[in-house]
Amino acid sequence: MKERAMKGRVEFWFEFASTYSYLSAMRICSLAKERSVEVEWRPFLLGPIFAAQGWTTSPFNLYPAKGRNMWRDMERQCATAGLPLVQPDPFPQISLLAARVALLAVEAGAGSAFCRGVFAAEFGEGRNISDPQVIGEVLAQAGLGAELLQMAGAPETKLALRDQGDVAARRGLYGAPSFVVGEELFWGDDRLEQALDWAGT
Amino acid sequence: MKERAMKGRVEFWFEFASTYSYLSAMRICSLAKERSVEVEWRPFLLGPIFAAQGWTTSPFNLYPAKGRNMWRDMERQCATAGLPLVQPDPFPQISLLAARVALLAVEAGAGSAFCRGVFAAEFGEGRNISDPQVIGEVLAQAGLGAELLQMAGAPETKLALRDQGDVAARRGLYGAPSFVVGEELFWGDDRLEQALDWAGT
Repeated sequence: MKERAMKGRVEFWFEFASTYSYLSAMRICSLAKERSVEVEWRPFLLGPIFAAQGWTTSPFNLYPAKGRNMWRDMERQCATAGLPLVQPDPFPQISLLAARVALLAVEAGAGSAFCRGVFAAEFGEGRNISDPQVIGEVLAQAGLGAELLQMAGAPETKLALRDQGDVAARRGLYGAPSFVVGEELFWGDDRLEQALDWAGT
Repeated sequence: MKERAMKGRVEFWFEFASTYSYLSAMRICSLAKERSVEVEWRPFLLGPIFAAQGWTTSPFNLYPAKGRNMWRDMERQCATAGLPLVQPDPFPQISLLAARVALLAVEAGAGSAFCRGVFAAEFGEGRNISDPQVIGEVLAQAGLGAELLQMAGAPETKLALRDQGDVAARRGLYGAPSFVVGEELFWGDDRLEQALDWAGT
Protein backbone atom coordinates (compact mmCIF):
# COMPACT_ATOMS: atom_id res chain seq x y z
CA MET A 1 0.00 0.00 0.00
CA LYS A 2 1.30 3.38 -0.93
CA GLU A 3 1.66 5.96 1.83
CA ARG A 4 -0.13 9.20 1.20
CA ALA A 5 2.24 12.12 1.07
CA MET A 6 2.20 13.93 4.40
CA LYS A 7 1.22 17.56 4.22
CA GLY A 8 2.75 18.71 7.43
CA ARG A 9 4.02 17.75 10.81
CA VAL A 10 3.04 18.55 14.38
CA GLU A 11 5.09 18.07 17.50
CA PHE A 12 2.80 16.64 20.16
CA TRP A 13 4.28 17.54 23.55
CA PHE A 14 2.69 15.69 26.44
CA GLU A 15 3.24 14.72 30.06
CA PHE A 16 2.00 11.33 31.23
CA ALA A 17 0.74 12.79 34.51
CA SER A 18 -1.44 15.32 32.67
CA THR A 19 -5.16 14.66 32.37
CA TYR A 20 -5.67 16.75 29.24
CA SER A 21 -2.70 15.03 27.60
CA TYR A 22 -4.72 11.81 27.96
CA LEU A 23 -7.55 13.33 25.94
CA SER A 24 -5.20 14.44 23.16
CA ALA A 25 -3.24 11.21 23.09
CA MET A 26 -6.39 9.19 22.55
CA ARG A 27 -7.67 11.27 19.63
CA ILE A 28 -4.64 12.75 17.86
CA CYS A 29 -3.97 9.77 15.56
CA SER A 30 -7.29 9.74 13.75
CA LEU A 31 -7.54 13.54 13.56
CA ALA A 32 -4.01 13.80 12.16
CA LYS A 33 -4.68 11.05 9.63
CA GLU A 34 -7.77 12.86 8.32
CA ARG A 35 -5.54 15.85 7.59
CA SER A 36 -2.51 13.88 6.34
CA VAL A 37 -0.46 15.35 9.17
CA GLU A 38 2.45 13.49 10.72
CA VAL A 39 2.64 13.37 14.51
CA GLU A 40 5.91 13.48 16.44
CA TRP A 41 5.31 12.08 19.92
CA ARG A 42 7.28 14.21 22.36
CA PRO A 43 7.06 13.05 25.99
CA PHE A 44 8.50 15.49 28.51
CA LEU A 45 8.31 16.24 32.22
CA LEU A 46 6.36 19.24 33.45
CA GLY A 47 7.95 19.04 36.90
CA PRO A 48 11.03 21.16 36.10
CA ILE A 49 8.91 23.71 34.19
CA PHE A 50 6.42 23.96 37.05
CA ALA A 51 9.27 24.19 39.56
CA ALA A 52 10.71 27.14 37.63
CA GLN A 53 7.32 28.84 38.12
CA GLY A 54 7.47 28.15 41.85
CA TRP A 55 4.99 25.25 41.78
CA THR A 56 5.80 22.13 43.77
CA THR A 57 2.95 20.01 42.39
CA SER A 58 0.17 20.16 39.81
CA PRO A 59 -1.72 23.49 39.71
CA PHE A 60 -4.84 21.33 40.01
CA ASN A 61 -3.68 20.39 43.50
CA LEU A 62 -2.37 23.85 44.36
CA TYR A 63 -5.67 25.51 43.44
CA PRO A 64 -8.49 23.28 44.75
CA ALA A 65 -11.38 25.07 43.00
CA LYS A 66 -9.55 24.72 39.68
CA GLY A 67 -8.77 21.09 40.46
CA ARG A 68 -12.38 20.22 41.33
CA ASN A 69 -13.65 21.69 38.09
CA MET A 70 -10.90 20.03 36.07
CA TRP A 71 -12.10 16.61 37.20
CA ARG A 72 -15.71 17.48 36.43
CA ASP A 73 -14.63 18.84 33.04
CA MET A 74 -12.66 15.64 32.39
CA GLU A 75 -15.77 13.58 33.22
CA ARG A 76 -17.77 15.56 30.68
CA GLN A 77 -15.04 15.45 28.03
CA CYS A 78 -14.43 11.73 28.48
CA ALA A 79 -18.16 11.01 28.31
CA THR A 80 -18.35 12.90 25.02
CA ALA A 81 -15.28 11.11 23.65
CA GLY A 82 -16.43 7.70 24.89
CA LEU A 83 -13.31 7.32 27.04
CA PRO A 84 -13.17 5.72 30.49
CA LEU A 85 -11.92 7.88 33.35
CA VAL A 86 -10.50 6.74 36.67
CA GLN A 87 -8.66 9.20 38.92
CA PRO A 88 -5.23 7.74 39.55
CA ASP A 89 -4.05 7.73 43.15
CA PRO A 90 -1.82 9.55 43.82
CA PHE A 91 -2.45 12.39 41.43
CA PRO A 92 -0.34 13.48 39.72
CA GLN A 93 1.38 10.17 39.02
CA ILE A 94 5.17 10.01 38.99
CA SER A 95 5.80 9.90 35.26
CA LEU A 96 9.60 9.67 35.14
CA LEU A 97 9.88 5.98 34.25
CA ALA A 98 7.09 6.13 31.68
CA ALA A 99 8.64 9.19 30.02
CA ARG A 100 12.07 7.57 29.76
CA VAL A 101 10.66 4.36 28.31
CA ALA A 102 8.49 6.43 25.95
CA LEU A 103 11.58 8.06 24.44
CA LEU A 104 12.90 4.58 23.67
CA ALA A 105 9.54 3.44 22.31
CA VAL A 106 9.42 6.46 19.99
CA GLU A 107 12.92 5.61 18.81
CA ALA A 108 11.78 2.04 18.19
CA GLY A 109 8.90 3.31 16.03
CA ALA A 110 6.13 2.36 18.46
CA GLY A 111 5.71 5.65 20.29
CA SER A 112 2.04 6.03 19.58
CA ALA A 113 1.06 2.51 20.70
CA PHE A 114 3.18 2.64 23.85
CA CYS A 115 2.12 6.15 24.92
CA ARG A 116 -1.57 5.51 24.38
CA GLY A 117 -1.16 2.31 26.36
CA VAL A 118 0.34 4.21 29.29
CA PHE A 119 -2.46 6.79 29.26
CA ALA A 120 -5.12 4.08 29.03
CA ALA A 121 -3.62 2.20 32.00
CA GLU A 122 -3.33 5.39 34.06
CA PHE A 123 -6.56 7.30 33.36
CA GLY A 124 -8.68 4.51 31.94
CA GLU A 125 -7.90 1.97 34.67
CA GLY A 126 -6.34 4.01 37.46
CA ARG A 127 -3.13 2.00 37.46
CA ASN A 128 0.18 3.23 38.86
CA ILE A 129 2.48 4.15 35.97
CA SER A 130 5.55 4.42 38.18
CA ASP A 131 5.31 0.63 38.68
CA PRO A 132 7.78 -1.15 36.34
CA GLN A 133 5.39 -4.08 36.07
CA VAL A 134 2.62 -1.86 34.68
CA ILE A 135 5.04 -0.32 32.19
CA GLY A 136 6.26 -3.79 31.28
CA GLU A 137 2.71 -4.88 30.44
CA VAL A 138 2.18 -1.80 28.30
CA LEU A 139 5.45 -2.49 26.49
CA ALA A 140 4.34 -6.04 25.71
CA GLN A 141 0.96 -4.84 24.42
CA ALA A 142 2.77 -2.37 22.17
CA GLY A 143 4.89 -5.19 20.79
CA LEU A 144 8.04 -3.95 22.49
CA GLY A 145 10.56 -5.90 24.52
CA ALA A 146 11.07 -5.74 28.27
CA GLU A 147 14.69 -4.71 27.72
CA LEU A 148 13.45 -1.13 27.27
CA LEU A 149 12.73 -1.12 31.01
CA GLN A 150 16.40 -1.75 31.70
CA MET A 151 17.53 0.75 29.09
CA ALA A 152 15.35 3.41 30.76
CA GLY A 153 17.85 3.62 33.58
CA ALA A 154 20.88 4.04 31.32
CA PRO A 155 22.74 7.37 31.49
CA GLU A 156 22.02 8.14 27.81
CA THR A 157 18.26 7.73 28.32
CA LYS A 158 18.28 9.95 31.39
CA LEU A 159 20.22 12.54 29.43
CA ALA A 160 17.85 12.28 26.46
CA LEU A 161 14.88 13.09 28.69
CA ARG A 162 16.68 16.07 30.22
CA ASP A 163 17.51 17.27 26.69
CA GLN A 164 13.85 16.90 25.76
CA GLY A 165 12.98 19.15 28.70
CA ASP A 166 15.47 21.76 27.53
CA VAL A 167 13.93 21.75 24.06
CA ALA A 168 10.47 22.12 25.62
CA ALA A 169 11.62 25.17 27.56
CA ARG A 170 13.20 26.67 24.43
CA ARG A 171 9.90 26.14 22.57
CA GLY A 172 8.23 28.28 25.27
CA LEU A 173 6.16 25.41 26.63
CA TYR A 174 4.49 26.00 29.99
CA GLY A 175 1.90 23.22 30.12
CA ALA A 176 0.68 20.06 28.47
CA PRO A 177 -0.51 19.04 26.05
CA SER A 178 1.12 21.51 23.67
CA PHE A 179 1.40 21.38 19.91
CA VAL A 180 4.17 22.97 17.90
CA VAL A 181 3.91 23.56 14.17
CA GLY A 182 6.94 25.42 12.90
CA GLU A 183 7.13 28.57 15.01
CA GLU A 184 3.53 28.27 16.12
CA LEU A 185 2.67 27.06 19.63
CA PHE A 186 -0.78 25.81 20.61
CA TRP A 187 -1.60 24.96 24.21
CA GLY A 188 -4.22 22.58 25.47
CA ASP A 189 -6.37 19.76 24.16
CA ASP A 190 -8.89 22.36 23.01
CA ARG A 191 -6.38 23.55 20.38
CA LEU A 192 -5.60 20.13 18.92
CA GLU A 193 -7.77 20.52 15.83
CA GLN A 194 -6.51 24.05 15.22
CA ALA A 195 -2.88 22.92 15.43
CA LEU A 196 -3.49 20.05 13.03
CA ASP A 197 -5.30 22.37 10.63
CA TRP A 198 -2.34 24.73 10.81
CA ALA A 199 0.04 21.88 10.00
CA GLY A 200 -2.15 20.52 7.23
CA THR A 201 -2.53 23.67 5.16
CA MET B 1 -43.64 39.70 17.92
CA LYS B 2 -44.01 36.77 20.21
CA GLU B 3 -41.01 35.76 22.29
CA ARG B 4 -39.95 32.17 21.88
CA ALA B 5 -40.16 30.27 25.14
CA MET B 6 -36.70 30.03 26.66
CA LYS B 7 -35.45 26.51 27.20
CA GLY B 8 -32.86 27.27 29.82
CA ARG B 9 -30.63 29.82 31.40
CA VAL B 10 -26.91 30.29 31.73
CA GLU B 11 -25.06 32.55 34.12
CA PHE B 12 -22.26 34.21 32.17
CA TRP B 13 -19.57 35.24 34.68
CA PHE B 14 -16.97 37.56 33.24
CA GLU B 15 -14.25 40.01 34.21
CA PHE B 16 -13.73 43.08 32.04
CA ALA B 17 -9.94 42.78 32.33
CA SER B 18 -10.03 39.22 30.96
CA THR B 19 -9.08 38.60 27.35
CA TYR B 20 -11.05 35.39 26.98
CA SER B 21 -14.10 37.06 28.52
CA TYR B 22 -13.94 39.42 25.52
CA LEU B 23 -14.22 36.47 23.14
CA SER B 24 -17.23 35.05 24.98
CA ALA B 25 -18.98 38.40 25.38
CA MET B 26 -18.83 39.01 21.65
CA ARG B 27 -20.32 35.68 20.65
CA ILE B 28 -22.60 34.53 23.48
CA CYS B 29 -25.74 36.38 22.31
CA SER B 30 -26.07 34.73 18.92
CA LEU B 31 -25.06 31.29 20.18
CA ALA B 32 -27.55 31.50 23.04
CA LYS B 33 -30.31 32.67 20.74
CA GLU B 34 -29.79 29.69 18.42
CA ARG B 35 -30.40 27.43 21.42
CA SER B 36 -33.22 29.51 22.99
CA VAL B 37 -31.10 29.96 26.09
CA GLU B 38 -31.36 33.03 28.28
CA VAL B 39 -28.11 34.71 29.33
CA GLU B 40 -27.60 36.34 32.73
CA TRP B 41 -24.72 38.79 32.49
CA ARG B 42 -22.69 38.50 35.67
CA PRO B 43 -19.75 40.91 35.90
CA PHE B 44 -17.37 40.25 38.77
CA LEU B 45 -13.82 41.02 39.84
CA LEU B 46 -11.16 38.35 39.62
CA GLY B 47 -8.77 40.36 41.79
CA PRO B 48 -10.01 39.10 45.17
CA ILE B 49 -10.18 35.51 43.87
CA PHE B 50 -6.65 35.72 42.47
CA ALA B 51 -5.44 37.35 45.68
CA ALA B 52 -6.86 34.42 47.67
CA GLN B 53 -4.65 32.17 45.49
CA GLY B 54 -1.62 34.33 46.27
CA TRP B 55 -1.57 36.11 42.90
CA THR B 56 -1.03 39.86 42.83
CA THR B 57 -1.78 40.32 39.12
CA SER B 58 -2.94 38.36 36.10
CA PRO B 59 -1.38 34.89 35.76
CA PHE B 60 -0.54 35.99 32.20
CA ASN B 61 1.82 38.54 33.71
CA LEU B 62 3.08 36.28 36.48
CA TYR B 63 3.99 33.52 34.01
CA PRO B 64 5.56 35.16 30.95
CA ALA B 65 5.62 32.08 28.69
CA LYS B 66 1.91 31.58 29.37
CA GLY B 67 1.27 35.26 28.75
CA ARG B 68 3.13 35.33 25.43
CA ASN B 69 1.18 32.38 24.12
CA MET B 70 -2.11 33.80 25.39
CA TRP B 71 -1.64 36.90 23.23
CA ARG B 72 -0.71 34.79 20.20
CA ASP B 73 -3.71 32.55 20.85
CA MET B 74 -5.95 35.62 21.14
CA GLU B 75 -4.65 36.85 17.77
CA ARG B 76 -5.56 33.52 16.19
CA GLN B 77 -8.96 33.32 17.92
CA CYS B 78 -9.85 36.92 17.06
CA ALA B 79 -8.79 36.41 13.43
CA THR B 80 -11.08 33.38 13.22
CA ALA B 81 -13.96 35.26 14.86
CA GLY B 82 -13.41 38.39 12.78
CA LEU B 83 -12.81 40.48 15.89
CA PRO B 84 -10.28 43.32 16.21
CA LEU B 85 -7.61 42.93 18.89
CA VAL B 86 -5.54 45.68 20.50
CA GLN B 87 -3.54 44.98 23.65
CA PRO B 88 -4.69 47.50 26.26
CA ASP B 89 -1.96 49.29 28.17
CA PRO B 90 -1.69 48.63 31.04
CA PHE B 91 -2.76 45.02 31.04
CA PRO B 92 -4.74 44.00 32.92
CA GLN B 93 -6.95 47.07 32.93
CA ILE B 94 -8.46 48.26 36.20
CA SER B 95 -12.03 47.04 35.80
CA LEU B 96 -13.62 48.27 39.03
CA LEU B 97 -15.57 51.19 37.55
CA ALA B 98 -16.74 49.22 34.52
CA ALA B 99 -17.91 46.34 36.71
CA ARG B 100 -19.88 48.62 39.03
CA VAL B 101 -21.55 50.41 36.12
CA ALA B 102 -22.23 47.04 34.47
CA LEU B 103 -24.25 45.90 37.48
CA LEU B 104 -26.43 48.99 37.06
CA ALA B 105 -26.67 48.46 33.29
CA VAL B 106 -27.81 44.88 33.84
CA GLU B 107 -30.42 46.13 36.30
CA ALA B 108 -31.56 48.67 33.69
CA GLY B 109 -32.01 45.85 31.15
CA ALA B 110 -29.10 46.88 28.91
CA GLY B 111 -26.37 44.67 30.32
CA SER B 112 -25.51 42.97 27.06
CA ALA B 113 -25.16 46.21 25.05
CA PHE B 114 -23.15 47.97 27.74
CA CYS B 115 -20.81 45.06 28.50
CA ARG B 116 -20.09 44.35 24.86
CA GLY B 117 -19.40 48.05 24.41
CA VAL B 118 -16.85 48.01 27.21
CA PHE B 119 -15.08 44.95 25.79
CA ALA B 120 -15.06 46.45 22.29
CA ALA B 121 -13.54 49.71 23.57
CA GLU B 122 -10.93 47.86 25.61
CA PHE B 123 -9.78 45.00 23.39
CA GLY B 124 -11.02 46.23 20.03
CA GLU B 125 -9.65 49.77 20.36
CA GLY B 126 -7.19 49.57 23.25
CA ARG B 127 -8.99 52.23 25.27
CA ASN B 128 -8.64 52.67 29.03
CA ILE B 129 -11.78 51.37 30.71
CA SER B 130 -10.91 52.91 34.07
CA ASP B 131 -11.47 56.32 32.45
CA PRO B 132 -14.97 57.62 33.32
CA GLN B 133 -15.15 59.37 29.95
CA VAL B 134 -14.70 56.09 28.08
CA ILE B 135 -17.38 54.44 30.25
CA GLY B 136 -19.63 57.47 29.67
CA GLU B 137 -19.34 57.04 25.91
CA VAL B 138 -20.14 53.33 26.16
CA LEU B 139 -23.16 54.13 28.33
CA ALA B 140 -24.44 56.58 25.72
CA GLN B 141 -23.97 54.07 22.90
CA ALA B 142 -25.91 51.52 24.94
CA GLY B 143 -28.75 54.03 25.34
CA LEU B 144 -28.08 54.53 29.03
CA GLY B 145 -27.81 57.78 30.96
CA ALA B 146 -24.64 59.29 32.39
CA GLU B 147 -26.18 59.20 35.87
CA LEU B 148 -25.09 55.56 36.11
CA LEU B 149 -21.53 56.85 36.39
CA GLN B 150 -22.46 58.73 39.55
CA MET B 151 -24.48 55.83 40.91
CA ALA B 152 -21.46 53.58 40.47
CA GLY B 153 -19.83 55.24 43.46
CA ALA B 154 -22.83 54.83 45.75
CA PRO B 155 -22.44 52.53 48.77
CA GLU B 156 -25.19 50.18 47.55
CA THR B 157 -23.44 49.67 44.19
CA LYS B 158 -20.11 48.99 45.87
CA LEU B 159 -21.84 46.49 48.13
CA ALA B 160 -23.63 44.85 45.22
CA LEU B 161 -20.31 44.19 43.47
CA ARG B 162 -18.80 42.74 46.63
CA ASP B 163 -21.87 40.51 47.00
CA GLN B 164 -21.41 39.42 43.39
CA GLY B 165 -17.85 38.40 44.24
CA ASP B 166 -19.07 36.39 47.21
CA VAL B 167 -21.55 34.55 45.00
CA ALA B 168 -18.76 33.87 42.48
CA ALA B 169 -16.62 32.34 45.20
CA ARG B 170 -19.56 30.22 46.44
CA ARG B 171 -20.09 28.97 42.87
CA GLY B 172 -16.47 27.75 42.94
CA LEU B 173 -15.31 30.19 40.27
CA TYR B 174 -11.56 30.56 39.86
CA GLY B 175 -11.26 32.29 36.50
CA ALA B 176 -13.17 34.02 33.74
CA PRO B 177 -15.14 33.57 31.67
CA SER B 178 -17.14 30.94 33.52
CA PHE B 179 -20.59 29.61 32.80
CA VAL B 180 -22.94 28.20 35.39
CA VAL B 181 -25.97 26.09 34.48
CA GLY B 182 -27.70 24.84 37.60
CA GLU B 183 -25.02 23.00 39.56
CA GLU B 184 -22.77 22.69 36.53
CA LEU B 185 -19.69 24.91 36.14
CA PHE B 186 -17.89 25.41 32.84
CA TRP B 187 -14.65 27.37 32.66
CA GLY B 188 -13.24 29.20 29.69
CA ASP B 189 -14.38 30.51 26.34
CA ASP B 190 -13.72 27.05 24.89
CA ARG B 191 -16.62 25.68 26.94
CA LEU B 192 -19.19 28.30 25.88
CA GLU B 193 -20.97 26.08 23.37
CA GLN B 194 -20.97 23.11 25.76
CA ALA B 195 -22.49 25.23 28.55
CA LEU B 196 -25.19 26.58 26.27
CA ASP B 197 -25.95 23.07 25.02
CA TRP B 198 -26.23 21.93 28.63
CA ALA B 199 -28.67 24.76 29.36
CA GLY B 200 -30.67 24.19 26.22
CA THR B 201 -31.44 20.51 26.63
